[in-house]
Amino acid sequence: MEDLYVIKIGGETINSEDSLKACLKAISTSGKKVILVHGGGKKVTELAQKLFIPQQMVEGRRITSLETLELCTMVYAGLINKNIVAGLSAKKHVAIGLSGADLNCIVSKKRDASVINYGFVGDIVKVDEMVFENFITQNIIPVVNSISISEDAELLNTNADVMAAEIAKAMSANYKVHLLYCFEKSGVLKDITEENSVIPDISKSDFMHMKETKQIADGMIPKLQTAFRALYHGVEEARILKSDALESYFANEKPGTNISLH
Amino acid sequence: MEDLYVIKIGGETINSEDSLKACLKAISTSGKKVILVHGGGKKVTELAQKLFIPQQMVEGRRITSLETLELCTMVYAGLINKNIVAGLSAKKHVAIGLSGADLNCIVSKKRDASVINYGFVGDIVKVDEMVFENFITQNIIPVVNSISISEDAELLNTNADVMAAEIAKAMSANYKVHLLYCFEKSGVLKDITEENSVIPDISKSDFMHMKETKQIADGMIPKLQTAFRALYHGVEEARILKSDALESYFANEKPGTNISLH
Repeated sequence: MEDLYVIKIGGETINSEDSLKACLKAISTSGKKVILVHGGGKKVTELAQKLFIPQQMVEGRRITSLETLELCTMVYAGLINKNIVAGLSAKKHVAIGLSGADLNCIVSKKRDASVINYGFVGDIVKVDEMVFENFITQNIIPVVNSISISEDAELLNTNADVMAAEIAKAMSANYKVHLLYCFEKSGVLKDITEENSVIPDISKSDFMHMKETKQIADGMIPKLQTAFRALYHGVEEARILKSDALESYFANEKPGTNISLH
Repeated sequence: MEDLYVIKIGGETINSEDSLKACLKAISTSGKKVILVHGGGKKVTELAQKLFIPQQMVEGRRITSLETLELCTMVYAGLINKNIVAGLSAKKHVAIGLSGADLNCIVSKKRDASVINYGFVGDIVKVDEMVFENFITQNIIPVVNSISISEDAELLNTNADVMAAEIAKAMSANYKVHLLYCFEKSGVLKDITEENSVIPDISKSDFMHMKETKQIADGMIPKLQTAFRALYHGVEEARILKSDALESYFANEKPGTNISLH
């Protein structure tokens, strides 16, 4: 099976023009088949502040009112998505920006509001892998933002890490899929204040132990859980790394943290 | 040759949920092959006001600073585009949102700044008709926003009327193309305050005469010129009509104003 790289870029990478450029350059020179997934939460938070739209996060997830959904749709599907598409075009790649609504490629279900009402937030129920397959076989890079669509055709805000994992899972029937979470840190850190403390490998049992002993930052827990689920469902590799290290990754070095089941 | 309807929806239609729904319903029930093109300038103006980003229009065209380009990209390619795509999905159509940057389908040239510096504004130099052809033959409705891309991979703000016309021209090699400009008025009006004063037909010579005798609203002049250019380049029909009249149009009535060369 051919290799496919599902690369999620998030956090500060989106806000830093240099990091983003480095990321796109690494993808471009790699010559690999890639699906890019991005969020852009920090830009949404900035814009919400300017517009006096209060934001609330619960366990790292954004409570999404109708107003906030509009901001997310503007920032994720508009501003950031088209900038990445244009950035790839500058590297002579053909790219296509996709929300889950486009071609109904990522369908989600509005999250049950009985415990916490997250508002317009969706959990993915279906990825149409043929849509992605069609583009990547034509050497077109899908650039996927984290807006999905419900079966009732409502736009829903979706976690970008989960979106990347679900795409990775769906594609793993036909590809050897590498799920790469790129962000501003060097990997999963033993000491969050110390960039040199990257943990090179985390197995499922390491993770369980680290969680119990609270050796792991809260924000990292859902990301790792998502990575484990992807591996469990046939994804070949899951790795958390610094965006700037993508080039060294494609040069067969092993930057960041490798997540493995065993 | 098969009929293809290039429908531009603009003005108040975008801001009115009811008008937009009526438009999408008419398209949906028509069963025709359609390419939708939209602007969304009023939403940009609203958002700019809230963010205290001053806006300047010259001859109906927006002077586009980098900040304003970001707003346009958010509103056109994000908010409005995905809402229309979702609206079509609600009608059980498969749609895909496209800016000119996606698949590099609409390439423009930054407007020369020597007379008036419009900033990040582009004039279209190339429409990749194969991109549209590929989607419409699969019964996918392209929903095109008015952000294009330059040959240097810069995002540029583009006039949506012109974008619709250029797509119509490019598609007319293989289709009988009908270019429909839908907005909130009933057509080109003799008296702008009187909705019943629709002029049913305007030929090129009528237009020259009306322009000379100043019988025509300033804002309508570029729209009509664009329509004439499209007809001159092989487009079958050009019509300016009220969005709500799209259903009656597809029922073979002749709402609004028909633009013709002779």
